[in-house]
Amino acid sequence: MTQPDFSKGLIPAIITDHETKEVLMLAYMNQESYQKTLETNQTWFYSRSREALWHKGATSGHFQQVKSIVLDCDFDTLLIAVEQIGAACHTGAKTCFFNKVKEVKSDG
Amino acid sequence: MTQPDFSKGLIPAIITDHETKEVLMLAYMNQESYQKTLETNQTWFYSRSREALWHKGATSGHFQQVKSIVLDCDFDTLLIAVEQIGAACHTGAKTCFFNKVKEVKSDG
Repeated sequence: MTQPDFSKGLIPAIITDHETKEVLMLAYMNQESYQKTLETNQTWFYSRSREALWHKGATSGHFQQVKSIVLDCDFDTLLIAVEQIGAACHTGAKTCFFNKVKEVKSDG
Repeated sequence: MTQPDFSKGLIPAIITDHETKEVLMLAYMNQESYQKTLETNQTWFYSRSREALWHKGATSGHFQQVKSIVLDCDFDTLLIAVEQIGAACHTGAKTCFFNKVKEVKSDG
C-alpha cells in the first residue's frame, strides 16, 4: 500500500468536505494517528500544542468520517475527504478558513 | 490587515484551483515568500529541501496567479485560490494529489 513518509516528522493532512470539496481544516499526523485513522475511518491527529494524539470529535462530538485518503507526489502531505459531523472548526465555524486576507479582482 | 503567525517557523499554504476548488498542492511559506506573494499576486514559497525562496513557475513557466488568500482560525495555515498556468505538480500532473490510499464505500 502507498505509505506516507514520516521520516521528516509530522505531516500535514488537508481535510475537505467530500461533497462540496471545501477545505475545512489542516492538522498534523504522526504514524500512530495515521494508523488509527486507517483503522477507524475517523480522523485522528497529533496535536502539536498538546503533544498528544487527538481523536477529532472525541470532546465536541464533531467527528469526521473518512471517505477517501490521497497522498501527494512526494508522500509527505495527505488529502482526506470526510463527512463532517457538526462544525470542523473549534470556533463553531463550518470551516477553519474564515479570515480573508486578500481577494484579487478578475483583472488583477 | 490579518497577518499569518510565523512565530513557530514556516507555515503551510494549501493551493486550490479558484474555479474547480480542487486542491492542487501544498507548500510552505516564510515571511519573505508571503510578502512577495502579496506584492506580485503570484505564489512564492520557501523550499525546505533547497532552503531557498522559490517563485513557483520561474523554471517551468507554471505560474500561479493568486485569486484569494484566506487564513485559518489560528493564523498558521494559508488557503490560496489560484489560476494555475499549466500543471501544478512537478511531475506534470494537474494536481500533486494522485496517490490514492483508500476509498470508503458509502456504507463504510
